[in-house]
Formats: sequence, C-alpha cells, structure tokens
Amino acid sequence: MIKVIDGGITAAKGFTAAGVHCGIKAGKKDLALVVSECPAATAAMFTTNKVAAAPVVFDKEQLQKSPLTSAIIANSGIANACTGERGMQDCQTMAQKTADVLSVPVEQILVASTGVIGHYLFIDKIKKGIKLAASELSPEKHLDAEIAIMTTDTRPKEYAVEVATDEGNFRIGGMTKGSGMIKPNMATMLTFLTTDADVAPEHLDFALRQAVEHSFNRISVDNDTSTNDTTAILANGKSGVKEIVPTSPLYAEFCEALQTVCIELAKMLVKDGEGTTKLIEIQVNNAANDSDALQGARAIADSYLVKTAMYGEDPNWGRIMCALGYAGIELVPEKIQLRLNSVPILQTNFEQPTSRVDARKALEAEEVLISVDLGLGNSSATVWTSDLSHEYVDINAKYTT
Amino acid sequence: MIKVIDGGITAAKGFTAAGVHCGIKAGKKDLALVVSECPAATAAMFTTNKVAAAPVVFDKEQLQKSPLTSAIIANSGIANACTGERGMQDCQTMAQKTADVLSVPVEQILVASTGVIGHYLFIDKIKKGIKLAASELSPEKHLDAEIAIMTTDTRPKEYAVEVATDEGNFRIGGMTKGSGMIKPNMATMLTFLTTDADVAPEHLDFALRQAVEHSFNRISVDNDTSTNDTTAILANGKSGVKEIVPTSPLYAEFCEALQTVCIELAKMLVKDGEGTTKLIEIQVNNAANDSDALQGARAIADSYLVKTAMYGEDPNWGRIMCALGYAGIELVPEKIQLRLNSVPILQTNFEQPTSRVDARKALEAEEVLISVDLGLGNSSATVWTSDLSHEYVDINAKYTT
Repeated sequence: MIKVIDGGITAAKGFTAAGVHCGIKAGKKDLALVVSECPAATAAMFTTNKVAAAPVVFDKEQLQKSPLTSAIIANSGIANACTGERGMQDCQTMAQKTADVLSVPVEQILVASTGVIGHYLFIDKIKKGIKLAASELSPEKHLDAEIAIMTTDTRPKEYAVEVATDEGNFRIGGMTKGSGMIKPNMATMLTFLTTDADVAPEHLDFALRQAVEHSFNRISVDNDTSTNDTTAILANGKSGVKEIVPTSPLYAEFCEALQTVCIELAKMLVKDGEGTTKLIEIQVNNAANDSDALQGARAIADSYLVKTAMYGEDPNWGRIMCALGYAGIELVPEKIQLRLNSVPILQTNFEQPTSRVDARKALEAEEVLISVDLGLGNSSATVWTSDLSHEYVDINAKYTT
Repeated sequence: MIKVIDGGITAAKGFTAAGVHCGIKAGKKDLALVVSECPAATAAMFTTNKVAAAPVVFDKEQLQKSPLTSAIIANSGIANACTGERGMQDCQTMAQKTADVLSVPVEQILVASTGVIGHYLFIDKIKKGIKLAASELSPEKHLDAEIAIMTTDTRPKEYAVEVATDEGNFRIGGMTKGSGMIKPNMATMLTFLTTDADVAPEHLDFALRQAVEHSFNRISVDNDTSTNDTTAILANGKSGVKEIVPTSPLYAEFCEALQTVCIELAKMLVKDGEGTTKLIEIQVNNAANDSDALQGARAIADSYLVKTAMYGEDPNWGRIMCALGYAGIELVPEKIQLRLNSVPILQTNFEQPTSRVDARKALEAEEVLISVDLGLGNSSATVWTSDLSHEYVDINAKYTT
C-alpha cells in the first residue's frame, strides 16, 4: 500500500539536506546539499545531449569509480556548461570540498549545476557555501534544498511516499526542478530521489529507467535533453526492510512506488512549466501498436498550435487531427474519435456531436484531458504537456539579461 | 540573366487571374481563380499528412486523369478537411462549375482550400463566386487572387522573374500564403506558380521538387505538413522560347530561376509568419556531411528557446549549442564557432570574444543570420525561421473563435 507523506528528499530514513545562499544568485538560495548517513547505492540517468555540461561528465566518472554515494552537491544560477577544462576542475573542487566537510571519500560525491550556459562557477563562493550548508544539515531542511536548485521554477516541487509491505515499511522521496516546459528537457531538469529501501545499484538502475520512461520521458521527446539533465536515486537501506531483489514481490512494489513518485514529480514539472496555465494530459488509445500510441501522443503534445489553442480554451480539434496526421503513425482518419475532458468532440466519420460552445466549456478547467481513440488496435500511451502562453514568451525572451 | 519583375501569378504570358468575395469570410475576398489561356503542363506537390484534406485527394486524382491544367480555383476561410464524402463532392462541384464557366474539360481544373478544419464549404456561395471571378479575369488581377487566398497572412506575397537567354526570354511568377510560421507547414501553405516556358510535365516535376527542397522545405521539418499544403506550377509555353529539356543549358537556367522564386516566396512566408518580428537565417557550415548540416540547422530553427531569445534580442548562445547538442549530428563542442549577424559570439574552445552588450546589438536588426561553423567537414545548409513572439500566441489562441 502506497501512502503519500511529507518530507520530500529527506522523507526516507537516514537522509539530511540543506539549502543556502552562497552568492551566485542575488539574495536567493543557490546551493543544495543532500546527504545520506551511510554510503548509498546509486543509479543515475544523464542527458544524451552531446554538449554535456561538466557536472554530467564528472558524475559519470564518479559512478564508474564508486556505485555508492554519500552526498549530492548542486548549485543553481550557472550551468557550468561549455566551460571546458576549467569547468571540470570546478566540479572536482566542489566534490572535494564536500567530501572534506563531510569526512567521506571524494568519489562518493555527485555534483550538479543548472542555470546559464557558458559562464564559469564562482568557485570560492561555492566552497564557502558548502561549509555553510554542511553546518545546517537536517532532516527538516528538504524544502530549503529544493528551493536552492530552482531557476525559473515558480514553486518548489517535492513528493514522497511510504510503502507498507508484509516485510515492513520503506519510503521513497524526491525533489525536482524544471522548467522550460514546452520542450521540457531543453531547460535543465534536475531530479534527486532518495529511498531507505535496500536495493543494489544494478536493480536500482533498472527500476529508475522504467520509472523515468513512464514519467519524465513522457513529458518530452527523448532527444530534447538539455546540457545538464540529471536524475539520480540514492538507496541507503536504512528502512530495516530486507534487501529488495528482483525475484521478490517487494521489487514490483518498489518499482511501482518509484514510478508513482516520478510521475507526480513530472506532472508538477509540467504544471510549473514556464508560463503554464493548464496541465494537459494526452491519452492515445486503441493504437495499432505501442510505439504508434506514444508517437501520436507526443505529436499532439509537441504541437504549438494545439498548445496555443488550449491556452485560448479553443476547441480547435482540427489541430489535434493535423498533429496525428503528421505523426508518422498508422491511422484511418474516419475511425478517429476525440474527447476533451470526456466531452465527445469528434466521433467516427467526422461526426461532431457537441456544439462549439459546449466544447469550449470543457476547456475551462485547469487540467485538460485530450483523449484520442484511433480505433485500430489495443495499445495506449499517456503523455503530459503544458499550454503555450504569453508568459512563456516573456520568460524566455529575457532569460539571461 | 534573372531580372525581378512585377505581376506575380500573371507575370508570365497567357495567364489571367481574379480574386473575389463570395461570402465565406465576412467582407473579405475569399475565392481566387487563376487561368491559363491554353492547357498548361502541370507539376504539383501535396501534403504528406495522413489527414489530407478533400482538395488534396481530389487534385491528385485530377492529375492522374490529366497532366494538363487550365485553371486553379481556391478558396480561403474553410479548409474542407475532415469532411468525408461530402467534402469530395464539394471539390467535384467546384471543379465542374469552373470548367463550365471557362468551357474547358473538368479534369483540367485544380481545386484548393485553406482555413478552418472540420467545416463544410458553402458550396452555393462558391458556385456564384466562380461565375463572378470568371467575369473579372485579367492579367492585372494577380494581387486580387493573392489576397483571396490569405488567412492570417498580414500582407500579400508574390514574386516574379524574367529570364533572358540566348533563345529568348521566359517568365516565372508565383503567389503564396502561410502563415502559422513557427512550424510553417502546420498552417496551410498554398503556393501557385506559373511560367510561360515550355516544359513537359515530368521535367517540370523534377524542377519543382528541387526548388521546393531548397526553399519551402527549408522553412520547416518535412513531416510537419498541414492537411491542405499544396504547391503547383503551370507551364503554358506561351513565351515562344523552344521547349526546355534537361539536355539543354536552358533547363539549368529554368531550374535556377524557379528556385529563386521559391526561395523568395519562402522567405516572405517566414517574414509574414504569425507574430513574426524577425526573419532568422540559419547557416550551418563545415558539417561532416550534408544531412548533418541540414539537421543541425533545423534543430536550431525549431528550438522554442532560440526563437524566443531572438524575439527578446538576447544573445543567449547556449541555447544554440544546446539545440546542436540534441540534433543527433556529429559534433565536437570545442570546435564549434558561432556568429550572430557576422559578430563572433563563440570561437573554438568556448572562447567568447564579444561582450554581451555588443552581442546584443547584433540582434537589433530585423534580419538575423545565425552562422555556425562545426569545424568538421565541408557541408553546408541554410534554413529560415521566425522568432516566437507574444503575437504568435495571441493569433493562435483564438483562431477559430
């Protein structure tokens, strides 16, 4: 049984966090520290962008050296991307300073950055900030840590669950930041997850990949990853529940709970996307196969014209049909049925059972479900997207200046 | 020698046109007629969207029946898409009425529509409009015809050239309408071209495909075509220049001139794109191969974040690097150089030779050239895009209502 609980990144036993202002951003928290009281099994996924930021390159090397992590140190304001050799040295310095203040091996430190590309870190300020953050570590400071990794995010995004099993309870929690949500991963997404379940790195890795595939990868096209995207999970085993292995029924429960946390965080990312006024869920059902279902849903989710119509609460279903038409999937236009928040907009043979006025009313809600029935097979997929608003343009026209 | 001339769609000898108000749109011209004084060899390209509008399906059938065209009849306001059997009947009625008033065979008529998806045409109004348009046909009415096919276009877009050759002069002219320019082909693009050169349908077809590949296909990703996109060229041979065949040097001149007309019309489409404040040309040079060059340029052109930065005149080059990074092309980040309107923004090894203030100045122009040197090979590609502005959101949030 999965129960939603408070506590975000420190909801699980044995984790502490802090978030401080070190001086990268004027007057705002800009440095987060998350610490496990013992070395934690780690799985992580990174951007596939070929212009990968220094911390991404660094963390991959760290995880090669050690599958165990004691702490994550993350700054906002500067992405440390396109910074060459100096950028890599700055990562090393951040990791070393964190290792020193926590008295743990340097290879047990992960580093992350988010912000503007092409600037060097203020490494001296960060070093002082690490010392300050270490002095403030507490299981209560999860929100401070989350606030410290925010960029254009308008609100903190954290989620945690407790899973009750026959073998005892374990917890999974996490925090995330976005937020250029239109193609979400073009803005940096950082997601950190913690659990007190006892899961070995390779099994943790499989669970994370599954969860990300059905959550963060469903709010974007895979390749549209930013230079800094990072998702990492630390499992410290402090719950007292016996080790969770794939042959145990607990593993399915663990995977399901992790996916729940990731989906909720992913939806928060979309909702807090730059200039988002609506969360739009797109379900494509009865597609010929799984990949068609997903591709069709993504084509709708990525359509500027669908997104602006949603912003304008305009039931312009032709744009949904148009997106399906160029999605490159098997379809028979006459068989397609569409619903907007369960109001039937289009039935087979292009029948339109609902008046435009009533269709429009269906779009007044803050959450809109676009449901497509392709009428061909049994495959379904769900993705989430935002509308496209004036505020999005405002935020992105002036970001660095 | 290619000379720019006036006259648009009727610049070439033997073509007349008219544009009238038939009653689809309130108080605006909404029906265009273009006529050749003799049956003209025809080549055409249509949307690849699987939800193809009725006129697209109809025209393909027409060209199977006859490679010669005497007239094009096109309406704006309603797309006649997702209209099933009745939509096909309406096309037939439009073609038959046009054939009747012009006394030509019905298979020599092409039909086009642009506007809102999912509505039926007002076919009786259109029939009356066809009669009216036929009565107004004139070589002077090219602008009327162009105005009659506009939707959210803010200005007419036509272009024509005269080509002086050793064998005499011929002309090529055209008109186009857009204008959801961000992913241009999601809004319907209609482009009609005429020439008084004598070119057989199959050679005309090759020339058109080449020209479109380097013009209209360079302002969008191929698959993002709307339900109604149509590009057609009519060649009536009235110039008196002998037939142009691929083995003649004239054919290269013809192809070059046609490409020039198409590129100029394509750039006008971008400039008049919904809410466009800047025309952005993206050149990717020294790519490892041709497909990398084009793919890299398109990734930049399609990036919301690059487009909003251009709107805000913000020299945020990290977004250009980010787009290249996920373009799926061969690249070495340290080798990349960037220029904005010839101001060097980024040199190899991430050197930034220009201050942000000066970089910003480079973006104040109405036309911006983003020039990328990948430093890997010898391949280049050019694409054109628009910026992403408040006005785009305004226009598209309220289009059907």
